[in-house]
Amino acid sequence: MPPRLPQGFRAAGVYSGVKRNASKFDLSLFVSDAPAVAVGVYTTNLVCAAPVKLDRARTPSDSIRVVAINSGVANACTGDQGDRDALQMAAAAALACGVAENQSLVMSTGVIGAMLPLEKIKGGIQAAAAVLADDETALENAARGMMTTDTVPKIRGREVQIAGVTTRVTGVAKGAAMIGPNMATMLSLILTDAKLNSDDAHAALLDAVEESFNCISVDGHMSTNDTVILLANGAAGGPELSDKPLADFRATLLEVCEDLAQSIPADGEGATHLITVEVHGCQTRADARRIGRTIADSPLVKTAVAGADPNWGRIVSAAGYAGVPFDPSKVTLHLNGLLLYERGAPVDFDPRATSESIAGSRDTSIVLLLEEGREAARFWTTDLTAEYVRLNADYHT
Amino acid sequence: MPPRLPQGFRAAGVYSGVKRNASKFDLSLFVSDAPAVAVGVYTTNLVCAAPVKLDRARTPSDSIRVVAINSGVANACTGDQGDRDALQMAAAAALACGVAENQSLVMSTGVIGAMLPLEKIKGGIQAAAAVLADDETALENAARGMMTTDTVPKIRGREVQIAGVTTRVTGVAKGAAMIGPNMATMLSLILTDAKLNSDDAHAALLDAVEESFNCISVDGHMSTNDTVILLANGAAGGPELSDKPLADFRATLLEVCEDLAQSIPADGEGATHLITVEVHGCQTRADARRIGRTIADSPLVKTAVAGADPNWGRIVSAAGYAGVPFDPSKVTLHLNGLLLYERGAPVDFDPRATSESIAGSRDTSIVLLLEEGREAARFWTTDLTAEYVRLNADYHT
Repeated sequence: MPPRLPQGFRAAGVYSGVKRNASKFDLSLFVSDAPAVAVGVYTTNLVCAAPVKLDRARTPSDSIRVVAINSGVANACTGDQGDRDALQMAAAAALACGVAENQSLVMSTGVIGAMLPLEKIKGGIQAAAAVLADDETALENAARGMMTTDTVPKIRGREVQIAGVTTRVTGVAKGAAMIGPNMATMLSLILTDAKLNSDDAHAALLDAVEESFNCISVDGHMSTNDTVILLANGAAGGPELSDKPLADFRATLLEVCEDLAQSIPADGEGATHLITVEVHGCQTRADARRIGRTIADSPLVKTAVAGADPNWGRIVSAAGYAGVPFDPSKVTLHLNGLLLYERGAPVDFDPRATSESIAGSRDTSIVLLLEEGREAARFWTTDLTAEYVRLNADYHT
Repeated sequence: MPPRLPQGFRAAGVYSGVKRNASKFDLSLFVSDAPAVAVGVYTTNLVCAAPVKLDRARTPSDSIRVVAINSGVANACTGDQGDRDALQMAAAAALACGVAENQSLVMSTGVIGAMLPLEKIKGGIQAAAAVLADDETALENAARGMMTTDTVPKIRGREVQIAGVTTRVTGVAKGAAMIGPNMATMLSLILTDAKLNSDDAHAALLDAVEESFNCISVDGHMSTNDTVILLANGAAGGPELSDKPLADFRATLLEVCEDLAQSIPADGEGATHLITVEVHGCQTRADARRIGRTIADSPLVKTAVAGADPNWGRIVSAAGYAGVPFDPSKVTLHLNGLLLYERGAPVDFDPRATSESIAGSRDTSIVLLLEEGREAARFWTTDLTAEYVRLNADYHT
């Protein structure tokens, strides 16, 4: 069953005229019928886009009603004018939805350095506000309106019982493994009808993002616009969540974030493999993640997978320069379930069968076992293909 | 005038049978007629190769006579057997040259995880010892014997007057921008007839490497075998260098290291541009280097250059996630001398002319100006082309 909007939310996606292709949507609105708790996690890039600055200033909040998202222009590296434009976009969304000016948030993705075409965006906001709905089509249109190089809209959700109340957590995301003009920008908006206070919502989102969106790597290039926002409007009813119900909510939020995060490298134009890197046996989860990220970021590992080459040396040596101390004589590596390296030494394996196991599946599993502790982490990335490079090199600003 | 071996050194390069192509050399010897001061800088990868462990244990030294280098097999990830093999290779080189066992060092580069074919290597060492010479051909042959995917031997040197004494600093290196089986291994051996004590030699080499070999980036993947060794045998005559003469030597060593370092990305199979990233206006050199490295490692920046795309947004945003604090409203960027971004805002520029300036030259210059301080650094890298990926993906272990 496809995910549905949580209670008390409506959405819309329209074509505002920013993208060249008029058959695509480029502007989305998400509206909560009642003031919602809103919390965000934002790019740590010092060069951050105007919409990020606006949202960062307005969250955490307990009174957000509208999130407006445009694709095609990122409103990044646009100076003071960009800041004013982001404010105007937020004001236009608030006006169109009949809420106070500071009850709206904005996200942008697309070309860097270009000014927002404000008139088109204002027109798009009005058009979207006129067709807001709570059905599946509206949700899908809104997910499409934030797409750039994505080939499919990314919508994931869960409907669960929390303390006897039917509760939905539904998220949309954009971001693709091949990134042309868009700086790999990852945007996600997660809506829930659970009742949360903003402190709990913020803590829940920070943890979930750390275990999901922060565990994907496409090209190691952090965007100026990366944003994940959670809106919680309480429309499911029931008391504010705490204790066990809060823990249940957090587990559900993490599942949805993981699903969304994975959908990003899985949608790689130019990528032929989704690589899952698991690192086990570390002293801390942060250590495991750091090793996982280093393996996932290595272009030599990524090209090896693209070429169906069981090149365990590239994987083991990437772990070795992650900056995490470990005993290299206690490293074991499995690739697609096949043992390639055991406690610091190569083992006899069938290179042809291993290569075929890579070539024969879109999913590649890399499992690295250390013996330093009991913590583990997972990381998702894509392979690096000549097609990725062609797509990125051929795009002209 | 091509660089010549310093006084008191001989060299040889031969085919030992390790590489498949018998028209290539794969084993090199460098011999000092007198015991030489030897110091090294080695990979910080935890997963380091057996020859690195051996050299690290034997340096600093003031009595090294021989360095033996093989290409084709890296003797990395080879466990205890690998350690024993490195010792045997060093012993064979010492024996062939008539020196004590602990007066020899070894370097290896090539396939990871394969055991050294010791009999072939011992045969090669004997053959090389029989043809040691101090002429240009011997030096070039020795530089060829350490090549893997390199397309040209890399020999750089200076002959200078230091305190009235004619002194040579001559180095060889291997490492190529496209890295197939070889994990981007960078090996370099620098020979000088200057008279140095090992403390001064070590300090000089550490500084020179920091400003040269540590300022190149091909794919951000640190090798198991990276090694730079300096041998100083004092054969030029004169007293041990100190004060001004020592400073003169250090300046010359840095020049040679910079020349060698640059020759590595410049020799990129599959690369079409050598990119020089300069970062100015930082509080510390380390800050400048960190920003330079982050820009140089960004696959989005590297693909943009490959596509002759003046995509300043990718460059500026890479600086933003380097982890160095700076005011993004005071960032200015020049590409090939053309102003693209000034104090935090895009400027009007001619994209076509800028693109043509990239397409029309193998050298691309990126100059980023901050306003945080007065320190600067340079970083060298290559572009990322579809050909790079094809070469790396198509190689099978």
